[in-house]
Amino acid sequence: MGDDALGDHGDALGDHGGSPLLSGATIAIVGLGLMGASLGYDLRGHCRRLVGVVRRPEAATDALTAGCADEVTLDAAAAVAAADLVVLAAPVRTVLHQIAGLGPLLRPDGILIDMGSTKAAICRAMDALPPHVQAIGGHPMCGKEKTGLAAAEAGLYGGCTFVLCPLPRTSLATLALVHEMIALIGAHPLVLEPERHDRLVAAISHLPYLNAASLVAHVMAVAETDPTVWEVAASGFRDSSRVAASDVNMLLDILLTNREAVLAAMDDYENRLGRLKQVLADGDETNLRALLEPIAAARREWRQLKVQG
Amino acid sequence: MGDDALGDHGDALGDHGGSPLLSGATIAIVGLGLMGASLGYDLRGHCRRLVGVVRRPEAATDALTAGCADEVTLDAAAAVAAADLVVLAAPVRTVLHQIAGLGPLLRPDGILIDMGSTKAAICRAMDALPPHVQAIGGHPMCGKEKTGLAAAEAGLYGGCTFVLCPLPRTSLATLALVHEMIALIGAHPLVLEPERHDRLVAAISHLPYLNAASLVAHVMAVAETDPTVWEVAASGFRDSSRVAASDVNMLLDILLTNREAVLAAMDDYENRLGRLKQVLADGDETNLRALLEPIAAARREWRQLKVQG
Repeated sequence: MGDDALGDHGDALGDHGGSPLLSGATIAIVGLGLMGASLGYDLRGHCRRLVGVVRRPEAATDALTAGCADEVTLDAAAAVAAADLVVLAAPVRTVLHQIAGLGPLLRPDGILIDMGSTKAAICRAMDALPPHVQAIGGHPMCGKEKTGLAAAEAGLYGGCTFVLCPLPRTSLATLALVHEMIALIGAHPLVLEPERHDRLVAAISHLPYLNAASLVAHVMAVAETDPTVWEVAASGFRDSSRVAASDVNMLLDILLTNREAVLAAMDDYENRLGRLKQVLADGDETNLRALLEPIAAARREWRQLKVQG
Repeated sequence: MGDDALGDHGDALGDHGGSPLLSGATIAIVGLGLMGASLGYDLRGHCRRLVGVVRRPEAATDALTAGCADEVTLDAAAAVAAADLVVLAAPVRTVLHQIAGLGPLLRPDGILIDMGSTKAAICRAMDALPPHVQAIGGHPMCGKEKTGLAAAEAGLYGGCTFVLCPLPRTSLATLALVHEMIALIGAHPLVLEPERHDRLVAAISHLPYLNAASLVAHVMAVAETDPTVWEVAASGFRDSSRVAASDVNMLLDILLTNREAVLAAMDDYENRLGRLKQVLADGDETNLRALLEPIAAARREWRQLKVQG
């Protein structure tokens, strides 16, 4: 694993090739929710100036008080035009609007990156930007089921995989700066094609969300006649259902911009669940064990792998 | 919630009615894995004598070294015959064999309780015991995906719901002693009919296990062509799939002794997942939101409830 972390660009990254270093860069983070503000905590003090962009005056006050940016503004256009690096930190469909609206305002060779949860639609929108804009898709594989500035924290990105989707236009200098940012926040870069990213996260993130939502819906139905079910629910239910509490707005954006991959993952999942169900209905212990043992082994192996690094 | 925690017996529990107190009781725990050994850590020193029963000499040495019992023996029959309280701490089908084999050996008014994960089959087996044996079904709603003595710990039961399934024969004195044990380990008793217990845990424990197993099976299938999926998997996958790493032997016992309730839960779950899938396939954002919002709200409400107590 990690072999393709630098993709075709990897061998040249030791040389910054005249790119701006992070320490000299003005960075604008558009959106100071969980992801944007957490990034701000980690980057502040390590760049020339960190500007946060929010939509409401109260949010600006809160962000300044929290200290996740050097400066907070409501003027997205001005902040983007003045920045060396612009980070879009919003739900996917908001990012799509921001790429179209703010992207063309970047200065020549200004760099645009996003942190949206699906990448194909976003990278298509970036492809349509004027040629002077440097752009790259990004997706840090971390988060919480809570959102907003209050949930943000320094170190959120530590140890996480940060997916990068370079465009045909993406320069080595852009990749170098983005890699420097990823190293600074303690994440690991992984270069993927946008469609491949979306297929993989359908399996490990979007499908589990819909599973968890369906599980909670089932327990809600049980609770209609027997509310004690909520009392009996313990750590197994807690973990299995945790992501069902995620922000619905964010998830709608994700699901609707990754619909085909999610539907395909659901098809395969339903078949696998149906097979377990049939074997259980048959009382076929031998085959039930034969299905479940490799699954348990694979999950334990993944845990080991993650613990070791 | 908790209104029915003492059931019909609740009003008399203040009076021990001549029952043995835990401090004067000899307790035998049959099986010193995760659940049995953790219980041993909590009870040792609070009863007259705590005897652990294991099957292998090496297990006896390990248990004595770990300190989860005053004494460890391979002679289950002798330990059961000498005990005031016998706790069966093994997977469900082992418990069923132990009830039939060891149950009749209990001294008059000796008390038998188990900690198995399904209750209808176990309570039926207890009903068939000779009339001199006091018995009650039990199921503490806690655990880990790891098993065995090495995973055991003091305090495992703290804050958990401990389901009790009294039999027609169960005396107030038995209930009182068992409640004393539950209070000592920091758990909360909840009296349920065995079939009702099994229906509820099908929803919040057995179904989530099969969901998690199917999710891991799906990711394994994706990994066959793209192993990077394991690298991209993060905390959402970790939590959603955690219970898939559970001990398969234990789960086979659970699934095969609670087959009908689990299959019924799977039917309902599949319908709910299928409905989400259809709405997503239709790109019907309004209805997708209408389905997901109450689910997210219910899951958040449950979290609040659990945090508050």
